[in-house]
Amino acid sequence: MLNRNIETFIGCDNDYEESNIVVFGAPFDSTTSFRPGTRFASKVMRSESFGIETYSPYQDKDLEDINVFDGGDLELSFGNTERALGQIKDFTSKVLADGKIPCMIGGEHLVTLGSVRAVAEKYPDLHVIQFDAHADLRDDYLEEKLSHATVIHRVWDILGDGRIFQFGIRSGDRSEIQWGKDHVYTNQFNFDTLQEITEKLQGKPVYLTIDLDVLDPSVFPGTGTPEAGGVSFMDLLQAILTVSGLNIVACDVNELSPVYDQSGVSTAVACKVLRELLLAITN
Amino acid sequence: MLNRNIETFIGCDNDYEESNIVVFGAPFDSTTSFRPGTRFASKVMRSESFGIETYSPYQDKDLEDINVFDGGDLELSFGNTERALGQIKDFTSKVLADGKIPCMIGGEHLVTLGSVRAVAEKYPDLHVIQFDAHADLRDDYLEEKLSHATVIHRVWDILGDGRIFQFGIRSGDRSEIQWGKDHVYTNQFNFDTLQEITEKLQGKPVYLTIDLDVLDPSVFPGTGTPEAGGVSFMDLLQAILTVSGLNIVACDVNELSPVYDQSGVSTAVACKVLRELLLAITN
Amino acid sequence: MLNRNIETFIGCDNDYEESNIVVFGAPFDSTTSFRPGTRFASKVMRSESFGIETYSPYQDKDLEDINVFDGGDLELSFGNTERALGQIKDFTSKVLADGKIPCMIGGEHLVTLGSVRAVAEKYPDLHVIQFDAHADLRDDYLEEKLSHATVIHRVWDILGDGRIFQFGIRSGDRSEIQWGKDHVYTNQFNFDTLQEITEKLQGKPVYLTIDLDVLDPSVFPGTGTPEAGGVSFMDLLQAILTVSGLNIVACDVNELSPVYDQSGVSTAVACKVLRELLLAITN
Amino acid sequence: MLNRNIETFIGCDNDYEESNIVVFGAPFDSTTSFRPGTRFASKVMRSESFGIETYSPYQDKDLEDINVFDGGDLELSFGNTERALGQIKDFTSKVLADGKIPCMIGGEHLVTLGSVRAVAEKYPDLHVIQFDAHADLRDDYLEEKLSHATVIHRVWDILGDGRIFQFGIRSGDRSEIQWGKDHVYTNQFNFDTLQEITEKLQGKPVYLTIDLDVLDPSVFPGTGTPEAGGVSFMDLLQAILTVSGLNIVACDVNELSPVYDQSGVSTAVACKVLRELLLAITN
Amino acid sequence: MLNRNIETFIGCDNDYEESNIVVFGAPFDSTTSFRPGTRFASKVMRSESFGIETYSPYQDKDLEDINVFDGGDLELSFGNTERALGQIKDFTSKVLADGKIPCMIGGEHLVTLGSVRAVAEKYPDLHVIQFDAHADLRDDYLEEKLSHATVIHRVWDILGDGRIFQFGIRSGDRSEIQWGKDHVYTNQFNFDTLQEITEKLQGKPVYLTIDLDVLDPSVFPGTGTPEAGGVSFMDLLQAILTVSGLNIVACDVNELSPVYDQSGVSTAVACKVLRELLLAITN
Amino acid sequence: MLNRNIETFIGCDNDYEESNIVVFGAPFDSTTSFRPGTRFASKVMRSESFGIETYSPYQDKDLEDINVFDGGDLELSFGNTERALGQIKDFTSKVLADGKIPCMIGGEHLVTLGSVRAVAEKYPDLHVIQFDAHADLRDDYLEEKLSHATVIHRVWDILGDGRIFQFGIRSGDRSEIQWGKDHVYTNQFNFDTLQEITEKLQGKPVYLTIDLDVLDPSVFPGTGTPEAGGVSFMDLLQAILTVSGLNIVACDVNELSPVYDQSGVSTAVACKVLRELLLAITN
Repeated sequence: MLNRNIETFIGCDNDYEESNIVVFGAPFDSTTSFRPGTRFASKVMRSESFGIETYSPYQDKDLEDINVFDGGDLELSFGNTERALGQIKDFTSKVLADGKIPCMIGGEHLVTLGSVRAVAEKYPDLHVIQFDAHADLRDDYLEEKLSHATVIHRVWDILGDGRIFQFGIRSGDRSEIQWGKDHVYTNQFNFDTLQEITEKLQGKPVYLTIDLDVLDPSVFPGTGTPEAGGVSFMDLLQAILTVSGLNIVACDVNELSPVYDQSGVSTAVACKVLRELLLAITN
Repeated sequence: MLNRNIETFIGCDNDYEESNIVVFGAPFDSTTSFRPGTRFASKVMRSESFGIETYSPYQDKDLEDINVFDGGDLELSFGNTERALGQIKDFTSKVLADGKIPCMIGGEHLVTLGSVRAVAEKYPDLHVIQFDAHADLRDDYLEEKLSHATVIHRVWDILGDGRIFQFGIRSGDRSEIQWGKDHVYTNQFNFDTLQEITEKLQGKPVYLTIDLDVLDPSVFPGTGTPEAGGVSFMDLLQAILTVSGLNIVACDVNELSPVYDQSGVSTAVACKVLRELLLAITN
Repeated sequence: MLNRNIETFIGCDNDYEESNIVVFGAPFDSTTSFRPGTRFASKVMRSESFGIETYSPYQDKDLEDINVFDGGDLELSFGNTERALGQIKDFTSKVLADGKIPCMIGGEHLVTLGSVRAVAEKYPDLHVIQFDAHADLRDDYLEEKLSHATVIHRVWDILGDGRIFQFGIRSGDRSEIQWGKDHVYTNQFNFDTLQEITEKLQGKPVYLTIDLDVLDPSVFPGTGTPEAGGVSFMDLLQAILTVSGLNIVACDVNELSPVYDQSGVSTAVACKVLRELLLAITN
Repeated sequence: MLNRNIETFIGCDNDYEESNIVVFGAPFDSTTSFRPGTRFASKVMRSESFGIETYSPYQDKDLEDINVFDGGDLELSFGNTERALGQIKDFTSKVLADGKIPCMIGGEHLVTLGSVRAVAEKYPDLHVIQFDAHADLRDDYLEEKLSHATVIHRVWDILGDGRIFQFGIRSGDRSEIQWGKDHVYTNQFNFDTLQEITEKLQGKPVYLTIDLDVLDPSVFPGTGTPEAGGVSFMDLLQAILTVSGLNIVACDVNELSPVYDQSGVSTAVACKVLRELLLAITN
Repeated sequence: MLNRNIETFIGCDNDYEESNIVVFGAPFDSTTSFRPGTRFASKVMRSESFGIETYSPYQDKDLEDINVFDGGDLELSFGNTERALGQIKDFTSKVLADGKIPCMIGGEHLVTLGSVRAVAEKYPDLHVIQFDAHADLRDDYLEEKLSHATVIHRVWDILGDGRIFQFGIRSGDRSEIQWGKDHVYTNQFNFDTLQEITEKLQGKPVYLTIDLDVLDPSVFPGTGTPEAGGVSFMDLLQAILTVSGLNIVACDVNELSPVYDQSGVSTAVACKVLRELLLAITN
Repeated sequence: MLNRNIETFIGCDNDYEESNIVVFGAPFDSTTSFRPGTRFASKVMRSESFGIETYSPYQDKDLEDINVFDGGDLELSFGNTERALGQIKDFTSKVLADGKIPCMIGGEHLVTLGSVRAVAEKYPDLHVIQFDAHADLRDDYLEEKLSHATVIHRVWDILGDGRIFQFGIRSGDRSEIQWGKDHVYTNQFNFDTLQEITEKLQGKPVYLTIDLDVLDPSVFPGTGTPEAGGVSFMDLLQAILTVSGLNIVACDVNELSPVYDQSGVSTAVACKVLRELLLAITN
């Protein structure tokens, strides 16, 4: 007998029960104010992931050797942000309850809030490491509290001061940058202090959120708000390896918007980042 | 002294007070479930409208000879559908109160609801003529009541039976098509009965909503949900001329998503439709 | 427990055993001489099929009400044409042996040969109806016997005179057109005689092969060799309905090359053709 | 010994001396006010022409059987319109002096003026048949006398009243349309009176200029100023066949701008138009 | 009462009279010999500028805090180079006469000549700093004196030896490179000597012309003549900051051709360069 | 008398007999498993090469000063890999027999095998230097021995241990990487040891094969299998200069797939690489 067509991210075709990591998509971009399209990221990444290998020469590890389950995409409400975040939180909570690491593929960066809400319930001492071009620290945006531009402020509402560590930030309005100075740790432009922060966070439960627009638009044009002056792929890879010794209890990769890069390179980059991330958080 | 850069749809550069028609953009697509991007339509149409003439050889009329004001785009909340619809309603009400005809450029089709809410307050006997590929008659979609797929059902909530006349419909799920048979008039696939309906609506206040995906995707690929088997440009033009004798008190043109048609043809078609519409509703 | 990500063509998520029709992809384009890319058709069609409904207003039927299994894509050898055709033949034979109708998504048109080889074994009296812009009747092409440009000649090698009926043909070299006059039935440019031929083929086992480039490039630009002057979508739909009363024992839809149409319209058209075809061959 | 790489339009690889028709490119678009790019048309057409056959099933003729020389592209001055027109005129005059028919590939429509200047010298009784979406009858455009928008007015300067016959026109400003009524014959929107005009022009020397934007943008999006509501490919083909009995002493095909149609369909259409035109003007 | 739609570059919505800097577009590309399209740069930059912030974290300055007027685009003659340059010169002269700094958005690089003609009249001791991939030092190009490829030679005609300083140059023909050695200062490939030159030019009136193709095509693909091996965005940003202490009396940013980069990244980069430039030249 | 249209790579228009280097295209991609399209590389490179200069400021040499013949593209069988390789081998052998250096433009990387077969016959002591992102060392791929993924293994079948030197490799499956350690020299990720290897190969006959995907996808997105983390253009240029003192008896440049980079930058980069390569191997 034949099976219905199964399509997973490359090398992530394990059964749920045997897996340590659960990959899932959160195809949501309703608050994106500039250029939408991140909702397609997870689907396209699965499809295009077969253009890369399961083996990483950087880590000498192979996705074939670890246990990852790809649960597909959540079916999220469009246009009702609060409900969509609830759906993300519920799924994340279930994965955590089963003792697995949730690894979400966004969607716009706001999806991180849904996931953090679940993870912070299980790990009250949660710390967040954010790789991003944008501070995302506004208190509201176009009068809305829930927005891609406010997401880390909302995460701060939950976690409070001293828990959020930003790297690569190179865009924000003056007031949010000012606000951030008092409430979060920000390493502008690059990863210069990442090693130092990593040492400080040893043993803490860490949520790693990678907004792929931290990359320079030359290597990652397929995103809603490209911001010149970013890091290289090798910088980002090194940063992932740097934090890989931490106790990463959940993570996400977001803001790929494939339609804006018809060469497919942005998707290929996102797939390689996800492969390296999955391998890095597996000991 | 020099003026700041003003950019209007071609030939629509009159002052507000002297104008009979007010063009404005409603750049909203937060409930779009498939392919977003209609938020860019109004901006791109203004920019590209200079590729067509102000003169119509079909009607032997010229935008230079009529008075249209282009007020630019509303600044709408993304991700908060109810608030965005309220913003559209408020603007439409003001235009109506000043005795002018509002002509909105969507955005996804849901924006029509914001405008109809205002128009139905002024004209309780309002009738709606809808040119569209999709019935848009679902009661809810992915559990949401406010959606591009439910918009005409929501309009029916306001107006009731016998007020809505659909043309060109060629897509829907079985249940909404069934529901529609009892509550709205539907001419599937084409405009065959438009002349007849037009005669019946003489003297009634009419809201004309044109979902441009009524056009065949060959001539209008730049839309979120292209649906093969549509009408030609000449069919649509003829349909606009057919209803032009009615008492059209408000109208809209929606669902252009320019990013999906990099040839620019869809935008050029939308501009020409808008030009003909503006000329047709002016006596 | 959660399931691994399953992705099928819309409404084709039945189990193999309960299904009457088996959809599968044959992602092969190694002999394409001009513009390759049809290998991506089946994958993209599955992904984009969620932009159309399962319900057809043309036939008042719904994919939800019939039983179709989508087995995913065959894993074919690239660059070894004979082996790839063997893989297609083997899969088709299995489906036929299980009493189901195979419905293949190409791939270049040569994939039809693999499938016909299997079908003709089961049905020695097989007749072929071909909708196509190109005659595909060359005996060899660039010295190769197995090519998208020779496929129907190879089918004739199996079936012989009087068994092949071409419609919509508008391109070929002089010699193949000449050869065709003696060996196959050809209705150039359109479907004018399709009704008549359909009556003649009542009761015969029929293989229906639809090369989507029979459509005019305006509605279907996403193909390797676009050929102006083709039929409209409504023409093709009507043609499918015309032959639907025949005993169609196998079928295919081929030559979508999504990369050449970044609007997605060609894929949407192909999905709608497949939906109508699946509904039409189900009584 | 091997030859340097020769690249001609398909089937046009005859020597100059043995040829009756001379194809050449005029890659000029310096006065294009909206979207430039027609300068690439001839080069891309040569390259992509190998996607069509040399044989026409419409005329049952083959480019292999007639003698056409492809001289490549003129090297024209950019930004100096008068000089570029002179270069076109000189080349055309040489071809005419050698007793051959020049068939120019534009370029923007203004290139026609360079060629007509040469042809009118040889044939003082020249008549022009123009297939076009735009009237091109302005006397000046943005203060310039030499422009794509004035080209037919400039041709009229040479030929005077009663010599110019326009078909398919559906765009212009009011004043040029008005002016045209007194000086040229215009059949708006279609080819309805072409047969009649053709009969009237029997025996006259005729210059046939085909602005490909006469085609509907659905089938020909790759042009600078797409104008909805045009003719189909089959309409244009029929029109070419209609005039083929005339004494066509020179011709051109212009306004393909390949960059605006990345599907390649517009180029394929242009190639097929050129093939049919070359076959049609050869007895 | 409502205002007509005003569209300016982000944060440049001051009145003319209160402004110190005047931004304007010069949409001209008639002499572009390879790939045209820079005429669209200014329009697209205004539209897309809302994807960046007004605040620069690099300079800790904000466009909201300085006074810049955006006067829109000049309406230039296409195909008449001399007239277009005159139109640019006239506008620039007016801005200078009003005591403001003109900041032009090209267009092809030739537009710089129009502006320099005006600036050199006011500042006879003018020096030019050029960031560019191409030397632009030919004396003529395809027999034309006025061309994007000759523009800096024409500037030299006005200013003479010792006044022009080129950085980043990595393309030219042998003769122009040779000529340049005797007449201009050229720092090939990068900005290595920029600091040193900047010190030498203290107190002099400086015209800064930034041909954006000085950037590597990886970060700036959207230009007519991409040339591999360029500088990074951070290099260019640093270069702008280096010269910001000089007496910059006029400047321009040119050669963005948005149609060649459908990801929008090139436009986003150009916007960020312009923001940093405007902030840098304001003390 | 006029000549038929000749189109060569810029500056490569010498006669065959006077030339030292013979450029030719091998438009083959039938075994490409992921994204085909490299067959178009040579044609597009010829056409677009006119966007760069013949003069190299890096080497202070000019293509005008050396003798290169461009023989156009081989006409290869599609779908019959062995025959196509034979056609490449035959042509290469002829060029070698005439005492010239063959410089092939791929095509997928497998074309290198055809050329190496010829070169190794003439130079039994042949060594291969490979710049590439992918190891290409599999023994078979999807059961095929002849594949882009096996090509260097097939080259090793001919040359044996100690003859192959790879640089820039950053992708492979675990087993081929393992196999490679015993049979070829591999410098992962970059060119760090290239100088050292170059010294070792002094005087040996060397075949240089450049898979352009060794470049980072930011600068070279137009390839079938983009792989993040590659070298910069300047790195590659330096590497070419490093090996230029060797006895390079044949070379190739492959894996440009222009359709995946509609900005044209990848093609421009490939053209510049080819120019530098041609100049570098000429003393």
